[in-house]
Amino acid sequence: MSPLSSIKLGRVDAIARAVLTVETGGVGFFEITHEVARFLERIGARDGVLLLFLRHTSASLVIEENADPDVRVDLVTALDRIAPANAGWVHDTEGPDDMPAHIKSMINGVTLHVPVADGKLGLGIWQGIYVAEHREAPHRREVMLQFLGSCAQE
Amino acid sequence: MSPLSSIKLGRVDAIARAVLTVETGGVGFFEITHEVARFLERIGARDGVLLLFLRHTSASLVIEENADPDVRVDLVTALDRIAPANAGWVHDTEGPDDMPAHIKSMINGVTLHVPVADGKLGLGIWQGIYVAEHREAPHRREVMLQFLGSCAQE
Amino acid sequence: MSPLSSIKLGRVDAIARAVLTVETGGVGFFEITHEVARFLERIGARDGVLLLFLRHTSASLVIEENADPDVRVDLVTALDRIAPANAGWVHDTEGPDDMPAHIKSMINGVTLHVPVADGKLGLGIWQGIYVAEHREAPHRREVMLQFLGSCAQE
Repeated sequence: MSPLSSIKLGRVDAIARAVLTVETGGVGFFEITHEVARFLERIGARDGVLLLFLRHTSASLVIEENADPDVRVDLVTALDRIAPANAGWVHDTEGPDDMPAHIKSMINGVTLHVPVADGKLGLGIWQGIYVAEHREAPHRREVMLQFLGSCAQE
Repeated sequence: MSPLSSIKLGRVDAIARAVLTVETGGVGFFEITHEVARFLERIGARDGVLLLFLRHTSASLVIEENADPDVRVDLVTALDRIAPANAGWVHDTEGPDDMPAHIKSMINGVTLHVPVADGKLGLGIWQGIYVAEHREAPHRREVMLQFLGSCAQE
Repeated sequence: MSPLSSIKLGRVDAIARAVLTVETGGVGFFEITHEVARFLERIGARDGVLLLFLRHTSASLVIEENADPDVRVDLVTALDRIAPANAGWVHDTEGPDDMPAHIKSMINGVTLHVPVADGKLGLGIWQGIYVAEHREAPHRREVMLQFLGSCAQE
């Protein structure tokens, strides 16, 4: 049996973009799956790909489990162990949580994409899209959303 | 001398997608480069980009060295040091390897892209595409493949 | 108030690619933002997305703070702590800095994308695009640049 499913072909002719503003409440994971799906609905997306880009260097974009909230607690712990505060960083002018936030942003990254089929995000059943805030204080974060593919209304 | 090569222009008009199913044998790296190349052949891909998306939160997608297999042994060791089992994680209902798997999935990520030129993957000579399995038990993993660009047969 | 901005629609019809060669001077971060912007100018890019792909397994692509250079010093330190040399790696035939370089490449990744609006990179004000070199010796690194979207001259 081939490991490859049947192939679906389509056209690419449209691109749409918008900026999603996310108000974080300090360190933690803030789910944006619903807002991203709403963007796809508003543009009448059919088949294509959704690209996400976070315009910041002390937060990150993550696709992770959306079931047990304890998972996000442990993800925060894991990142703190990888990049602890007060660990002899040279860059400390913006507070002890700033340089660790840059490290976490580098490791997780600020770009993602998600397939779109028939207007729906092709996420696995346990996957959600999150902005991971790495600063202690609440921040206003901007995520650039872009869809490339075909749309129903044009 | 300019660091930028000559520029190649083309058109984008097609999108194709398929699901690649990967049976992992437990913790380790499972190469999918050949299967991905076969997808490009089947759709007659010419110039464009291949996008990969893994629909799971306890495995990841990685582009790594495909020469010395010892490299993948050390990559597994490195991930275990970053996210050890039995390290006081709150989320432990699915076994001691579950929460470390989520952390490794976050750090490596679940999305990749590879340039495609004349139907061939634009990988470097030492690069292979892998599904990294982070659970101890074998799993069936789904990778969504998407090609955006131009195809020979349309 | 909706967290979603007004939506901008466009067409996708062009793809352009070039190879950017980056001469690194050994371990550290080498900014390529200017060269990438120049690529967009040369092809007359308008709206779309820029994709970057690094064809190597011992370096990585990173979007990080471009203000205080101390940040990059600390990022190097952080990566050394995550993947130290002489830490019992099995793969050691290419020198003590080789296996740590593969680990850093896996964690940071070798693929990125950046939105493009009106021909300009949609980076945040503190963001720069870097090739992170993880080997001690200088290397010549190749970055595949691809633009998908609309161009002024066609």
